[in-house]
Amino acid sequence: MLEDCITEVREKSPLIHNITNYVTVNDVANILLALGANPIMSDEPEDVQDITSICGGLNINIGTLNKRSIEAMFLAGHRANELGHAVLLDPVGAGASRLRTETALKLSEEIRFDMIRGNISEIKTMACGSGTTKGVDADTADAVTEENLDRMVLFAKSFAEDRNCIIAITGAIDLVADKKQCYVIRNGRPEMCRITGTGCQLSGMMTAFAVANPERRLEAAAASVCAMGLAGEIGFANMREGDGNSTYRNRIIDAVYNMNAGQLKEGAKYEIR
Amino acid sequence: MLEDCITEVREKSPLIHNITNYVTVNDVANILLALGANPIMSDEPEDVQDITSICGGLNINIGTLNKRSIEAMFLAGHRANELGHAVLLDPVGAGASRLRTETALKLSEEIRFDMIRGNISEIKTMACGSGTTKGVDADTADAVTEENLDRMVLFAKSFAEDRNCIIAITGAIDLVADKKQCYVIRNGRPEMCRITGTGCQLSGMMTAFAVANPERRLEAAAASVCAMGLAGEIGFANMREGDGNSTYRNRIIDAVYNMNAGQLKEGAKYEIR
Amino acid sequence: MLEDCITEVREKSPLIHNITNYVTVNDVANILLALGANPIMSDEPEDVQDITSICGGLNINIGTLNKRSIEAMFLAGHRANELGHAVLLDPVGAGASRLRTETALKLSEEIRFDMIRGNISEIKTMACGSGTTKGVDADTADAVTEENLDRMVLFAKSFAEDRNCIIAITGAIDLVADKKQCYVIRNGRPEMCRITGTGCQLSGMMTAFAVANPERRLEAAAASVCAMGLAGEIGFANMREGDGNSTYRNRIIDAVYNMNAGQLKEGAKYEIR
Repeated sequence: MLEDCITEVREKSPLIHNITNYVTVNDVANILLALGANPIMSDEPEDVQDITSICGGLNINIGTLNKRSIEAMFLAGHRANELGHAVLLDPVGAGASRLRTETALKLSEEIRFDMIRGNISEIKTMACGSGTTKGVDADTADAVTEENLDRMVLFAKSFAEDRNCIIAITGAIDLVADKKQCYVIRNGRPEMCRITGTGCQLSGMMTAFAVANPERRLEAAAASVCAMGLAGEIGFANMREGDGNSTYRNRIIDAVYNMNAGQLKEGAKYEIR
Repeated sequence: MLEDCITEVREKSPLIHNITNYVTVNDVANILLALGANPIMSDEPEDVQDITSICGGLNINIGTLNKRSIEAMFLAGHRANELGHAVLLDPVGAGASRLRTETALKLSEEIRFDMIRGNISEIKTMACGSGTTKGVDADTADAVTEENLDRMVLFAKSFAEDRNCIIAITGAIDLVADKKQCYVIRNGRPEMCRITGTGCQLSGMMTAFAVANPERRLEAAAASVCAMGLAGEIGFANMREGDGNSTYRNRIIDAVYNMNAGQLKEGAKYEIR
Repeated sequence: MLEDCITEVREKSPLIHNITNYVTVNDVANILLALGANPIMSDEPEDVQDITSICGGLNINIGTLNKRSIEAMFLAGHRANELGHAVLLDPVGAGASRLRTETALKLSEEIRFDMIRGNISEIKTMACGSGTTKGVDADTADAVTEENLDRMVLFAKSFAEDRNCIIAITGAIDLVADKKQCYVIRNGRPEMCRITGTGCQLSGMMTAFAVANPERRLEAAAASVCAMGLAGEIGFANMREGDGNSTYRNRIIDAVYNMNAGQLKEGAKYEIR
């Protein structure tokens, strides 16, 4: 059951190596701790192989990439592959600049990723070079909607087959697919877009879920997306007059901290196609 | 009207490129989102020209500058100038070290800035090399006060004329000047100094206001200063027993999130000299 | 009296130079401001000597070290030593990678530290190369407990004598020792481990306490540990239903903001051995 995946994270406390952007790094660390996992951050090429070796999973996020951190991403990725660790790519801003697009593509060619998680514009860019990315947010013209859902599910499965990994496309409707199955998830709140880093936080969580649930990675990835969306719903329900996006950020992480399997079971809204 | 400037930001959702310090970057991103604008951060020389090209404005903050990010500041600044984007300089710590002073001066010589925003010590350093900066905070000996206000207004206008840009000097009394007019603003709370990054956040906001209000940049800059100060007042009014600077930080961003034109109109405290 | 140490910090407002990791840097800045101290961050080799020169103390934290920041640590450390400033080392992740272990050891050989603060695994690594570090958290097998307390107190004093500095080992039970005396401190809450950066924040605070209390550095270091633990207790007492680690983070910093000497006197739980 999907809800058991969060229990496994809490029981196993996986250690996750994050090479991530400096904008949202603190929130990524705190949401991993909220989940019962343990974060470690390192992006120096001389440091990352040792750090990745003591971890269970690797979360690569290209959000504020630089030449040093790009080198570190490849070194850590190769080491994680050698060790059979779960590895996730979050191609933040692929499509927004040549360096980001090329780095995301080169990483996905050289490193074996278990999961790629991004918004639709980033994933389209990676699939066909044709996505348009509005800064680090998805172009609304690309969005997954009820109208184009069948087509987008096929796209997600096809890209998952092509890359032989799990593809998570997050937005108003979330898709989490391997080549055979696609979870269509309708948790979350539109106000989550008004907080920086909910996507980065989800990438950290998804890595932890994958490490703790090696035998059911697709279900685990879907569970992490449901958990993040549900936390957004719970956090929003706790908002009081005068609260805004800064308080909402805290409430979402708090909701992950307090979430148990029963809540996740009851709150997860998904279908499998 | 000054209050219309915030409406324009919310309606146009400008995308702002921030090359900023890693201390307060998350708050800068969240306050831009609170305002309805969109932030993107990038400081890698090979990335910044592409990123700046898709944005409407550029916010350069030298708070934790390094050689790589300094190179990126010049590259992004030149590109933004070519494209006619609004560009702001926040000379954090100018006067506190040779590298910061020289970088701020060199940037202001080579890049055409629409706005320079800093505390009085930083602005004095840029104007005459004679300010004293107490770390990243203004020296109290330099402060703008009711007693020296006439002289400081003249100084702000004169420096604005010299640099042909808008000068914003923020402190207990804020001055926002071009060569002809100076807004003297009395919003804000002294407790805002006990939060890191309220100045950095204001610089991000001011850039977004400028992008969304190209025909009235002085008014827009003044509106952003009033909005930040007013958010400080609203946030403070919402403080409860046991709250301190960390909660205050959240409440200020929340207040920006909830602020509308009517609130800003009613709350803005300024005169034009 | 131990509680006078916090009064001194509030009265003297020391300016602290932090070379610290980008994960928790915002919290370090805010907790220093909460305390009435002033933070400045700089990690560019060409900048750090100037910045350190205008400060009273230097806090070196190797949490997300890179080659540039390592060079900056040595330059700033030597300058701080020349000027007689209080200098603290926080060897984050020593034992977790070769680069971190070697950097921590080399720093401690070349720079004269007044304080070294870490978890037991990090301190053991520095003392004998034999600690095991679980990412950036202490291995539970290493923990200071009531059972091994006598032995650990001797270890702390002996390492303090060997390095001729104050050693602070923080965990469920905290030890703060010089060669003669060891404060055994029992403030704090286990939930503090579920927030990123409480250790980093304490290192910033300890540096400020040392600068403001030059004549009683051991007592000042112990006072900072009591203050942080007490803030954890006060913050926890203020938690409401639905709150989690993100809100807890804010409440701890808020508690430092509001803490006075009387509270610290009443709340500090320590014995001297």
